Amino acid sequence: MLPAQQGYDRAITVFSPDGRLYQVEYAIETVRRGTIAVGIKCKDGIIIAVEEKPRKLQISDTAQKIFQIDDHVGVAAAGYIPDARSQVDNARFFSQSNKMIYDEPVEVETIAKHLADQCQQYTQYAGVRPYGVALILGGVVNNTPQLYLTDPSGTYISYDAIAIGSGSDQVTDFLEKTYKEDLSLDDAAVLASAGIYLSSEDKEGTSHIRMAHIKKETGLYELVPEEQITKYANDAKEKYPHEQK
Amino acid sequence: MLPAQQGYDRAITVFSPDGRLYQVEYAIETVRRGTIAVGIKCKDGIIIAVEEKPRKLQISDTAQKIFQIDDHVGVAAAGYIPDARSQVDNARFFSQSNKMIYDEPVEVETIAKHLADQCQQYTQYAGVRPYGVALILGGVVNNTPQLYLTDPSGTYISYDAIAIGSGSDQVTDFLEKTYKEDLSLDDAAVLASAGIYLSSEDKEGTSHIRMAHIKKETGLYELVPEEQITKYANDAKEKYPHEQK
Amino acid sequence: MLPAQQGYDRAITVFSPDGRLYQVEYAIETVRRGTIAVGIKCKDGIIIAVEEKPRKLQISDTAQKIFQIDDHVGVAAAGYIPDARSQVDNARFFSQSNKMIYDEPVEVETIAKHLADQCQQYTQYAGVRPYGVALILGGVVNNTPQLYLTDPSGTYISYDAIAIGSGSDQVTDFLEKTYKEDLSLDDAAVLASAGIYLSSEDKEGTSHIRMAHIKKETGLYELVPEEQITKYANDAKEKYPHEQK
Amino acid sequence: MLPAQQGYDRAITVFSPDGRLYQVEYAIETVRRGTIAVGIKCKDGIIIAVEEKPRKLQISDTAQKIFQIDDHVGVAAAGYIPDARSQVDNARFFSQSNKMIYDEPVEVETIAKHLADQCQQYTQYAGVRPYGVALILGGVVNNTPQLYLTDPSGTYISYDAIAIGSGSDQVTDFLEKTYKEDLSLDDAAVLASAGIYLSSEDKEGTSHIRMAHIKKETGLYELVPEEQITKYANDAKEKYPHEQK
Amino acid sequence: MLPAQQGYDRAITVFSPDGRLYQVEYAIETVRRGTIAVGIKCKDGIIIAVEEKPRKLQISDTAQKIFQIDDHVGVAAAGYIPDARSQVDNARFFSQSNKMIYDEPVEVETIAKHLADQCQQYTQYAGVRPYGVALILGGVVNNTPQLYLTDPSGTYISYDAIAIGSGSDQVTDFLEKTYKEDLSLDDAAVLASAGIYLSSEDKEGTSHIRMAHIKKETGLYELVPEEQITKYANDAKEKYPHEQK
Amino acid sequence: MLPAQQGYDRAITVFSPDGRLYQVEYAIETVRRGTIAVGIKCKDGIIIAVEEKPRKLQISDTAQKIFQIDDHVGVAAAGYIPDARSQVDNARFFSQSNKMIYDEPVEVETIAKHLADQCQQYTQYAGVRPYGVALILGGVVNNTPQLYLTDPSGTYISYDAIAIGSGSDQVTDFLEKTYKEDLSLDDAAVLASAGIYLSSEDKEGTSHIRMAHIKKETGLYELVPEEQITKYANDAKEKYPHEQK
Amino acid sequence: MLPAQQGYDRAITVFSPDGRLYQVEYAIETVRRGTIAVGIKCKDGIIIAVEEKPRKLQISDTAQKIFQIDDHVGVAAAGYIPDARSQVDNARFFSQSNKMIYDEPVEVETIAKHLADQCQQYTQYAGVRPYGVALILGGVVNNTPQLYLTDPSGTYISYDAIAIGSGSDQVTDFLEKTYKEDLSLDDAAVLASAGIYLSSEDKEGTSHIRMAHIKKETGLYELVPEEQITKYANDAKEKYPHEQK
Repeated sequence: MLPAQQGYDRAITVFSPDGRLYQVEYAIETVRRGTIAVGIKCKDGIIIAVEEKPRKLQISDTAQKIFQIDDHVGVAAAGYIPDARSQVDNARFFSQSNKMIYDEPVEVETIAKHLADQCQQYTQYAGVRPYGVALILGGVVNNTPQLYLTDPSGTYISYDAIAIGSGSDQVTDFLEKTYKEDLSLDDAAVLASAGIYLSSEDKEGTSHIRMAHIKKETGLYELVPEEQITKYANDAKEKYPHEQK
Repeated sequence: MLPAQQGYDRAITVFSPDGRLYQVEYAIETVRRGTIAVGIKCKDGIIIAVEEKPRKLQISDTAQKIFQIDDHVGVAAAGYIPDARSQVDNARFFSQSNKMIYDEPVEVETIAKHLADQCQQYTQYAGVRPYGVALILGGVVNNTPQLYLTDPSGTYISYDAIAIGSGSDQVTDFLEKTYKEDLSLDDAAVLASAGIYLSSEDKEGTSHIRMAHIKKETGLYELVPEEQITKYANDAKEKYPHEQK
Repeated sequence: MLPAQQGYDRAITVFSPDGRLYQVEYAIETVRRGTIAVGIKCKDGIIIAVEEKPRKLQISDTAQKIFQIDDHVGVAAAGYIPDARSQVDNARFFSQSNKMIYDEPVEVETIAKHLADQCQQYTQYAGVRPYGVALILGGVVNNTPQLYLTDPSGTYISYDAIAIGSGSDQVTDFLEKTYKEDLSLDDAAVLASAGIYLSSEDKEGTSHIRMAHIKKETGLYELVPEEQITKYANDAKEKYPHEQK
Repeated sequence: MLPAQQGYDRAITVFSPDGRLYQVEYAIETVRRGTIAVGIKCKDGIIIAVEEKPRKLQISDTAQKIFQIDDHVGVAAAGYIPDARSQVDNARFFSQSNKMIYDEPVEVETIAKHLADQCQQYTQYAGVRPYGVALILGGVVNNTPQLYLTDPSGTYISYDAIAIGSGSDQVTDFLEKTYKEDLSLDDAAVLASAGIYLSSEDKEGTSHIRMAHIKKETGLYELVPEEQITKYANDAKEKYPHEQK
Repeated sequence: MLPAQQGYDRAITVFSPDGRLYQVEYAIETVRRGTIAVGIKCKDGIIIAVEEKPRKLQISDTAQKIFQIDDHVGVAAAGYIPDARSQVDNARFFSQSNKMIYDEPVEVETIAKHLADQCQQYTQYAGVRPYGVALILGGVVNNTPQLYLTDPSGTYISYDAIAIGSGSDQVTDFLEKTYKEDLSLDDAAVLASAGIYLSSEDKEGTSHIRMAHIKKETGLYELVPEEQITKYANDAKEKYPHEQK
Repeated sequence: MLPAQQGYDRAITVFSPDGRLYQVEYAIETVRRGTIAVGIKCKDGIIIAVEEKPRKLQISDTAQKIFQIDDHVGVAAAGYIPDARSQVDNARFFSQSNKMIYDEPVEVETIAKHLADQCQQYTQYAGVRPYGVALILGGVVNNTPQLYLTDPSGTYISYDAIAIGSGSDQVTDFLEKTYKEDLSLDDAAVLASAGIYLSSEDKEGTSHIRMAHIKKETGLYELVPEEQITKYANDAKEKYPHEQK
Repeated sequence: MLPAQQGYDRAITVFSPDGRLYQVEYAIETVRRGTIAVGIKCKDGIIIAVEEKPRKLQISDTAQKIFQIDDHVGVAAAGYIPDARSQVDNARFFSQSNKMIYDEPVEVETIAKHLADQCQQYTQYAGVRPYGVALILGGVVNNTPQLYLTDPSGTYISYDAIAIGSGSDQVTDFLEKTYKEDLSLDDAAVLASAGIYLSSEDKEGTSHIRMAHIKKETGLYELVPEEQITKYANDAKEKYPHEQK
């Protein structure tokens, strides 16, 4: 860090002479240091997947980086995970409130905008630091799969497929090369597995992969069982062998 | 940055010895680093256009830098886009409140002044940073096209045609040379396309151009469909060939 | 700036060892960097005039630096213009309130004191920076023309004629040499035009001059139409030729 | 300023290692830099006088440094004048409230203590800077002339005669040498004029002298008309010739 | 510490250029400096144990680092112990409230999430420092032993066995090597004793070991009496002799 | 001042590495720089005395450093006198409230504790600086003379005789050598005069000595008239000649 | 102090890179600089004792460092004594409230926890500094003597015998060597005297020793009269002669 930048990262988020908000960029750096998370939208629904490398005696029943928001919406997170939990709680409450007010499931975009608006506020007002986490929100509303990304800056964007966290540039490149709109949910799960292998140091096994899907036909968030992930992972190694090196 | 300036960009926005508000100037620098946005008023209505370069798998249905405020008003933004969204939400609420109170569509200037007043306050009070975004507000009220610019300093100004963001000086020069009051809406759209080509690194295609118009006859904000933008862009290349180099 | 002064211009306005309030002096420097504004009281009423150099496509209908406060009062501003707008809104509300409470037009001095009191507070309390603008308030109350100046320090003073902004020292000298109490409104307008030419880089044309008067006979604030300004400007060039160089 | 003192003059008023409140001393320095103000108590009443050097076109009807508080009390100020106005408003309101509650004119000491108490608080609490002004309060209550001084530290003291502002040490010396308890109001006015000449750069004319008296017989605050001041000034030059050099 | 890091550890918790929250990492360092605490889940219940080295005349009836939360839940703490007490009070109140609202014993995870959420907030908002303590929460709910860890970052994770505090890396390694799911409560207690010996400087005696268990059959938190600990400790020395060196 | 101390005297009062509260010590230094104040308890009542050196035209009717709190209690102050006035007002209000609630005169210790408690709070909470004054409170309650000292640290102590302010160490030494419990009120007054002469630069006259007593027989606070002080002072010079050099 | 530590002791209490809370450690240093205080629990009750070296004319009726909290509880303090008084007031109020709510005397541990909880909060929240005092709380509840220590960190611990303040390490060593559980109250008082002699510079006399006991049989806090202390002190010199050197 250059000495001249010291003044811009204290207390409240302020502009630097070159018009940048360093605190926001540093928070995004936190996201970049997180483990990989992937989200893929396909014709049959949504796949979200994360790398979670538990310690040996950690009980992996409780996922740390993949969360259910509502019956039909889930989140994959990269960055400072306690912040993710804070945003997930916020999203759950917001989603339930929406359902009670409008008597229909909330749009994924509506949740994404709600979370991103809070992120923006945490970059503008004093007394709080920006969130240090990016979220991939996926869900199925009215039979339509929807996939959104939010980040510490307060941006939210809709994607067909996106990766965040460590190595996400490389994984997103990979997704851009291989993604097709007519992927089946299984194809997407294989692709997501390949993406995680690409970023992870663990090129074998699936104990470090956690995955959830929201199928278009049911519109329900479900964790993918480990045996199924193993199947996807094996298919991924077969189908995209060069990505596993 | 010179060491002597270090004291003026912390915490709260304060005056420097030469009477400048550095935080405001830095926020304006944020606008200058944003991608180009253009607004043109013509006899038939208003054209607003922005450059939006989506990543390959980004879904471009949801515009990031061009927003509808009300039936008859739209906004094109340059700078820190999450801030734009915050101001757009503010403007939408303000516009609806106005309609409910006065039972007639709000003037574009009234919205512009409302947003600019908030910008000014964010340069004077502690506990908040200035907005890092400039907005081109365009609309048609009582059959009259209106075009306004607001910026982080809290200034708002009415223009016939204006550009903000990266390369906006050059684009505004171009607009000043080519603008005529009796432009048709199509002419204005061609001019706006030429302006965006002038600033953008992408000199081909229109996937990075987003445009909306408010026609005088309908007084309604409408996104311009992609095929139409392509037509405008081709006309722009033909009509202003030297601007595309 | 000397290093020893660095401590006095941060956060809250505090006294320096030599008993100065640097933030206030810096705010006054902001006024000095603004374009020229002139106010002249004469036997027939009040003239206020400003230099406004609009960009080519800027619509000059909406003045930026000259404002109506009430039927009988106007303001010319120099300095940080968004701050001027904030004070003008304050003055308009204050003026209307006064009329409703006392059922007679408010004195110009009453408005000037009200604005200056707020300026003073913004130099004494934390959490806010001083206003960066000086205002010339002119009006006619009970058949009597009144002219006041307020500045960021919270001072307000009555003048027969005064200039603020860039080059104001030179223009005020000129006014002191040429001012006579029995000037007609036209004489005063010519004098004001000469003052603006004296400070401005534009020695030709009147597109950069905006003027308003409050005639004693009507007691009403009116913008002076451009053709009339042109006439005054031509007279000014004739009458004070040496001031135009 | 020595570097070692830099730590003691920021944000809130704190003690220095040698037990001093620098912000208060700097505020008193502001008083010392102000133009001279004089107050004299005599057997017939109170004289207060200030130097006010208006610009050529400034309208001197509105005094800047001498104020009426109530029918029977006036103030002469030296230092940061907008702060004086703030204290004067406070004193007027306090004086009126007192009259309404107790149904008799307020003692000058009561006002002086009220203002000094606020000064003290502004040296002890955060979020506000000390007042940068000293006030000479003079009045006649129950047929008794009373003269008080308040300063930024929160001190208030009763004097027979006192000077504040630039050159006040020299003027106070002069007053101490020449003051007698049996001075008539005219004698006191001559003495006050001599005091102002002593401090002022203007050794001729009286356009820079403003004076008010509260006569014991009427108990009413009145501005001394200019012709009368001229008479006093001439007498001063005659009576104290050496003080005018 | 490198000078470049000085800016990131003041007042409020902010991101460093490399995306880290130094205040949180320093708080975790506080945990690392604490004495060892161990938690083990086994088929018969939960063992939590801490090292507490009382001064000679300290009365060891009142444990400092091991606390009962509810009938069925206990906590072992490492780090800044007064902070542990603050979190324990919070947990007790939360647990009682839960029981009153839902009329059934609270899940250990629910408490862990509640405490971790507060930890997260103390890393994001100004005016408070992060908690300097990590907690091992163990309990038996519905016949199921549950073991959770919370730390200053706001993370909470479920473990079969975990150690925190000084030497915890080494102790956790030891637990990972020796842990088996079918451990009896006695086995677990022996393992916990071995873990504490491994970290502690005291390789003899048990006056520095404090232990509690929640047996599956009773579901009740009970302190393990000293004679029982001695037995466990002796078994530990016998069973894991090399860990005692 | 050593550079290493610079960090401990800003904004809020904090501990230094050697466990000191510098702001409190600096405030006590303010007391040490004040003029001398003396309090003596004797069998017939209480004497308090201060040095007050008025300027030549200052009216010495209003004492600056000696105050009546209630019928039976008085205060002598050394240090920053505006702070003394703030505490005196507080004490007067507290004393009246006490009388109204309990229908008997308040104990001097109760007042001393009340003021000292506030002093303590001003050393612990942000947003306020410590008081810069020490007070000697003397009074007669239930026929019993009582004498207390409060200082900026929040300490209050009962004394038979005590001096504060400039030269107080020397004066207290003198009091310790000469004080006897069976002093008459006149003896005590002579002793107090001698104490003030010992510290003061003025070794002649009594215009700089102010004194009050609360006689046991009346239990009433009374200022000692100047002729009486002169008598005491002359006796002091005779009785303690060596202390006057 | 090393320069690298300068950042950790300002404004709010924050963690240093090595996981320490410097402000808390500095506050504990304040305790270490205080005069010695000793507390001893024995079979017949509690002894608390402090060194208080009054100035010659100080009236020692009012103890400064030993306080009664309730009928059955007392406190001995070391460190910044005004802070002790603040905590003592808090404890008295808490104790009375407890008695009114539960209709039985409060446990000493309950008071100790209450005070320690507040200490902890003052290390975690902004706007306040930690307490600079440690307290030994002793009392007899239900015929059981209880002795507790609280310190600035928010820790509270039960002891049989403990010393705090200057030289407390040495005194605690001495207590650990000599303490026996079956001490009589007189034995404990002799031991406490010996402890104070050990730390104090005054090896003769008892004017600097203040002592209170709560006898098990009465359960009442009583100050030990001076003649009794003298007896204890003489016994201490005889019994522990080497500790007096």
